Amino acid sequence: MSDTLGVVAPAVILVRPQLGVNIGACARAMLNFGLTDLRLVAPRDGWPNPDAGPAASGADVVLANARVFDTVAEACAGLGLIFATTMRGRELTRRVVTPAQAAREFHGLAGQGGLMYGPERTGLETEDLAVAHAILTIPVNPDFGSLNLAQAVIVSAYEWFRQADDTEAATLVNHDGPAPHEELEGLIDAVDVQLRANGYYNPVPGRAAAARLLMRNLFTRPEFTAGEVRSLRGIVRGLSQRRGGG
Amino acid sequence: MSDTLGVVAPAVILVRPQLGVNIGACARAMLNFGLTDLRLVAPRDGWPNPDAGPAASGADVVLANARVFDTVAEACAGLGLIFATTMRGRELTRRVVTPAQAAREFHGLAGQGGLMYGPERTGLETEDLAVAHAILTIPVNPDFGSLNLAQAVIVSAYEWFRQADDTEAATLVNHDGPAPHEELEGLIDAVDVQLRANGYYNPVPGRAAAARLLMRNLFTRPEFTAGEVRSLRGIVRGLSQRRGGG
Repeated sequence: MSDTLGVVAPAVILVRPQLGVNIGACARAMLNFGLTDLRLVAPRDGWPNPDAGPAASGADVVLANARVFDTVAEACAGLGLIFATTMRGRELTRRVVTPAQAAREFHGLAGQGGLMYGPERTGLETEDLAVAHAILTIPVNPDFGSLNLAQAVIVSAYEWFRQADDTEAATLVNHDGPAPHEELEGLIDAVDVQLRANGYYNPVPGRAAAARLLMRNLFTRPEFTAGEVRSLRGIVRGLSQRRGGG
Repeated sequence: MSDTLGVVAPAVILVRPQLGVNIGACARAMLNFGLTDLRLVAPRDGWPNPDAGPAASGADVVLANARVFDTVAEACAGLGLIFATTMRGRELTRRVVTPAQAAREFHGLAGQGGLMYGPERTGLETEDLAVAHAILTIPVNPDFGSLNLAQAVIVSAYEWFRQADDTEAATLVNHDGPAPHEELEGLIDAVDVQLRANGYYNPVPGRAAAARLLMRNLFTRPEFTAGEVRSLRGIVRGLSQRRGGG
């Protein structure tokens, strides 16, 4: 019931799922984003289902711990906030939330939340929806909105994980960080000195200042690391020490 | 090149994709979230691929307009900001962004962005990544991170669409809104009058105030609509007009 981040991840309740391959794909999508509590309500072809394992692509732990219930109400035991995913349900008076909003509410919840999904072809019935606190609708292209079951699970599970992962911005930097500004200026100086020595700026007045501005722009934008700046200075030295014609 | 929202949606570049069924699933994921510009670099089994259509589940327009290129560089023609999706790429000095960050940058872009994905088994090669401006890494469960190609596409496409859809919060309300407070108080009054007439509060002092507080809590939390409040008042009337034993 607890995900890899130490918070209680929501349960996934599949109501009357039809195909084992879809149950497996859901299990995979769940585990990708740290959800492990799978609850099956009256799966059409019984349980376990031999088609589920291969589709889970290694998320066997989710399938092995899946629990089967006769009714939606029994499957929701212990859950404090249940969102039912549907494109319909307009006849019900329920809040309609996006996956992002559902995830925010899960993260503010003391207990465990639940995400409920209906059968592949027909979706949830009105009686199923009555157990849910709100409707979750995934924003999709209004001209092509057919998400399959595992796609719907992956989007909601991703949102939950994304919002749990508040360190992501800090850890996802594949970069030493830009060099200190003075190292960049040192590079520009080195180029400048050499250009000046080579008479490059003559005879146009103002050309040196324009060149420095250009270099500052060009060398700053790529966020070169200190190591890269050193490499560039090596290249500048190499260029300035060139001997012979060209 | 333009999505249903009137903004330029990013292109999806599949580099050396292996299975037609995966190309089809990507096309479906793209169209679900308003992306239509599919570019294929050297698909293993040629193009068109008969396995792609059924897997696209109706996203045929994306497949029909897909373009095939020999090289990654050719496929990136016209694109201003290209994110390469990979779990690797640690040898490169590139910014690493999340799907959410990539989507934000696409939305701030004057031109068209691109999302690049590698072959199913091996992912992108270093030479492919050299064309990308930054690395996109999808935050996943560190213990189970195997997203398939279409799953990776759906998460990034969903992020793009979610951020484009800034009206979602306003439109996704399936609800008349809670009744004005005075209507709720009217309901409470009606119950209160009847309880009082029935002698329900006698003989305990303070019971009436406690009952009103309880009702106010119970009736406020569900955010009943005005129509629902009217229905409840009808029930209260029905209860109070009851005749006979029970």
